[in-house]
Amino acid sequence: MQMINAFEGASAAQSLPTDLKERIARRSRLLGPAYRLFYREPLHIVRGAGVWLYDVQGRKYLDAYNNVPVVGHCHQEVVAALTNQAAILNTHTRYVHDAVLNYAENLLQHFPQELSHVMFTCTGSEANDLGMRIAKHSTGGTGFVVSSFAYHGATEAVSALSPSLGYNLGPAPAHVRLVPPPDAYRGSSDVGQAFAAGVKAAVDDLAKHGHRVAGLLFDTVFSSDGILTHPIGMIDAAVDVVRAAGGLYMADEVQAGFARTGETFWGFQRHGRIPDIVSMGKPMGNGHPIAGLVMRPDIVAGFAKASRYFNTFGGNPVSSQVAQAVLTVIERDGLQAQVTQVGAYLVQRLKQLATRNECIGDVRGAGLYIGVDMVKDRQSKTPSPQIADAVVNGLRERGVLISACGAGANVLKIRPPLVFENKHVDILLDTLDETLASVAN
Amino acid sequence: MQMINAFEGASAAQSLPTDLKERIARRSRLLGPAYRLFYREPLHIVRGAGVWLYDVQGRKYLDAYNNVPVVGHCHQEVVAALTNQAAILNTHTRYVHDAVLNYAENLLQHFPQELSHVMFTCTGSEANDLGMRIAKHSTGGTGFVVSSFAYHGATEAVSALSPSLGYNLGPAPAHVRLVPPPDAYRGSSDVGQAFAAGVKAAVDDLAKHGHRVAGLLFDTVFSSDGILTHPIGMIDAAVDVVRAAGGLYMADEVQAGFARTGETFWGFQRHGRIPDIVSMGKPMGNGHPIAGLVMRPDIVAGFAKASRYFNTFGGNPVSSQVAQAVLTVIERDGLQAQVTQVGAYLVQRLKQLATRNECIGDVRGAGLYIGVDMVKDRQSKTPSPQIADAVVNGLRERGVLISACGAGANVLKIRPPLVFENKHVDILLDTLDETLASVAN
Repeated sequence: MQMINAFEGASAAQSLPTDLKERIARRSRLLGPAYRLFYREPLHIVRGAGVWLYDVQGRKYLDAYNNVPVVGHCHQEVVAALTNQAAILNTHTRYVHDAVLNYAENLLQHFPQELSHVMFTCTGSEANDLGMRIAKHSTGGTGFVVSSFAYHGATEAVSALSPSLGYNLGPAPAHVRLVPPPDAYRGSSDVGQAFAAGVKAAVDDLAKHGHRVAGLLFDTVFSSDGILTHPIGMIDAAVDVVRAAGGLYMADEVQAGFARTGETFWGFQRHGRIPDIVSMGKPMGNGHPIAGLVMRPDIVAGFAKASRYFNTFGGNPVSSQVAQAVLTVIERDGLQAQVTQVGAYLVQRLKQLATRNECIGDVRGAGLYIGVDMVKDRQSKTPSPQIADAVVNGLRERGVLISACGAGANVLKIRPPLVFENKHVDILLDTLDETLASVAN
Repeated sequence: MQMINAFEGASAAQSLPTDLKERIARRSRLLGPAYRLFYREPLHIVRGAGVWLYDVQGRKYLDAYNNVPVVGHCHQEVVAALTNQAAILNTHTRYVHDAVLNYAENLLQHFPQELSHVMFTCTGSEANDLGMRIAKHSTGGTGFVVSSFAYHGATEAVSALSPSLGYNLGPAPAHVRLVPPPDAYRGSSDVGQAFAAGVKAAVDDLAKHGHRVAGLLFDTVFSSDGILTHPIGMIDAAVDVVRAAGGLYMADEVQAGFARTGETFWGFQRHGRIPDIVSMGKPMGNGHPIAGLVMRPDIVAGFAKASRYFNTFGGNPVSSQVAQAVLTVIERDGLQAQVTQVGAYLVQRLKQLATRNECIGDVRGAGLYIGVDMVKDRQSKTPSPQIADAVVNGLRERGVLISACGAGANVLKIRPPLVFENKHVDILLDTLDETLASVAN
């Protein structure tokens, strides 16, 4: 399956600057054929600060894409936490250390009290992978239901739950069912009931084929599916369905978590049900590799009887201090409230822009996770991946970074660091306005 | 399955100091039941420097166990590399950056030239998991052969190849076969042929049950199996068997790699065959989460056609600079030669000790990965996990850290940072001598 916004490789490289061409060839020689770069003309970034990235020529780019550096690129307090602890001690969780305990306690305070255990990994992939193992032990089931263009990670087990990567060897694996995500723009009028009906059919079909459902796993803003955030409560009926069948509600917060959605600290909190397992990752360490899993104690009891858990680097003192610094900055600087305010302004300006651009079919999202659905026309709502691609690359040429998502590759994905301000929204929107004018002509 | 050298939990906690008891209870409340601590009296470590760890009371411990801080705890140059790059830029491999390319080039120079592609992950588990995916695409096979007490990681897929974790839900999975490792101490006289015969039987049985072999995966010093390093060439016939059946030779260098074995930079180089895929991890970033996979280009071609690869944190600029600093220190400080010399001295002193201690059945290993096989008596060679446990905990009480391994839980695992010197060997051996005298009485 083609990756959205990927550099197309050797054939596209002809027109690039010589030093970039050489580096791309070197990448290919060293890292092999499975790696992908972004953009028609890939970026050679050498420095980052706040919401800005700088390329090797010193040109600056407004970063409206990267959700990992959640408190801004190279945040001084996060770097200081990293530096200080790395110089003192970096071991692992088989010795007692207060940093992992203090962070665990502070992190769990952001969850409903029934979600009271946390386990640490290095990546979101590992977190979802561990979640799958725990769900299977807890339920005795083996089946999983995911949305039809889901992405949950890159291990063998979670790549099987990531149809957006493509099932290139055939259909979805026998223990996996794909369901249409809750889509209020193109879907039925009762989005929640339609989603629940899809989950019900999937759970029944899994059972018919010998796979009792272990879990319904979804990204709580359905980012790879095209950023689907409304109406509030749209996932509740589906959660009830999977629970009635003995499966767990597994919320993937790798994309939506850590105040990204503004209204709430976690994406799942925008809806009505409390998950059984919550995975998190990307922004947790502002780029430092730390991720984790939060769950109810009864969920992990079966797994712990059958297996112990150890991750050499997961929850080490350095990672814990870095993650604590990120959490402290989010809290102390009131980033959740800022996200709500700036996100609302971003949506308002996008909707204004939509009044003058027929190719904008829909503006949706929560906080600073915003999707702009590019269409051929508003009547048919036919996705326009061409316009989306032209806009993404047009913005990049003009010094603003976003990408696209969705099964139709047509939804602009706007997902900046949470320290984004109204003045950055203005730069983004003015540049988008200019780009759209150029694309339309 | 019981973990070797695990703290036994609440029942054992009664006699511990109050502050330690409280922290253990807090861990259990926050991190849940799947985590394990080391030692009968767990350690509360707060500081590390070189080969020394310091607990909360300021007591120092000689670290003869931790292989992750390969150039020593909190090595200044590694911390500086981390600090410098973290303050400049930390993004990902979808932008061009020289750090990952420079490191890839330097790392690959340590491999035979046919192994010319490297892919980056955050953990050894992820590296082995990716190796499995690539091996399946490359061979079209689905079966894997591993040693009978192997450990290859904690994801769903690689935990299925990790019998040392225990298959608590039943026998080994249908696509996995366990073979006795090449054991020159307790095994047959022709270790290599016996190992190859086991692999042949496993490959045939997999095929009989519909699983063509994709790979033979082993740790090149068989550490969890009890540290099995000799004779040189003992794995070659088995590799020929798996290749004749269309499978790959997958060398897990997470434990043995980065000059640990002294004689060679990688464990596989002590034997005669060049692997198709090599995984590495733990010491790669001296504790910073970076790991990777090196392979022949033709091996990854099939995978790359079917799937792209991205790891949000893997190979980022910070991880690359840290790993480069580790590699630079190993090279510039001549640690491989130092390991050879200090390792030989360690073995010599252990063998001296064995002349006075009947419970030492065997001393083996390579470089600074040394196993001491504790037995009830030398005639029967019956493993003595009791003596091993008493020695490990007796050393800990006396300020020296090691652990144990092997299916019999009876092999002392001595695996210090590579900056270990003869004077540290003397401390370790004098303390071991004293401990053995106490254990024997």
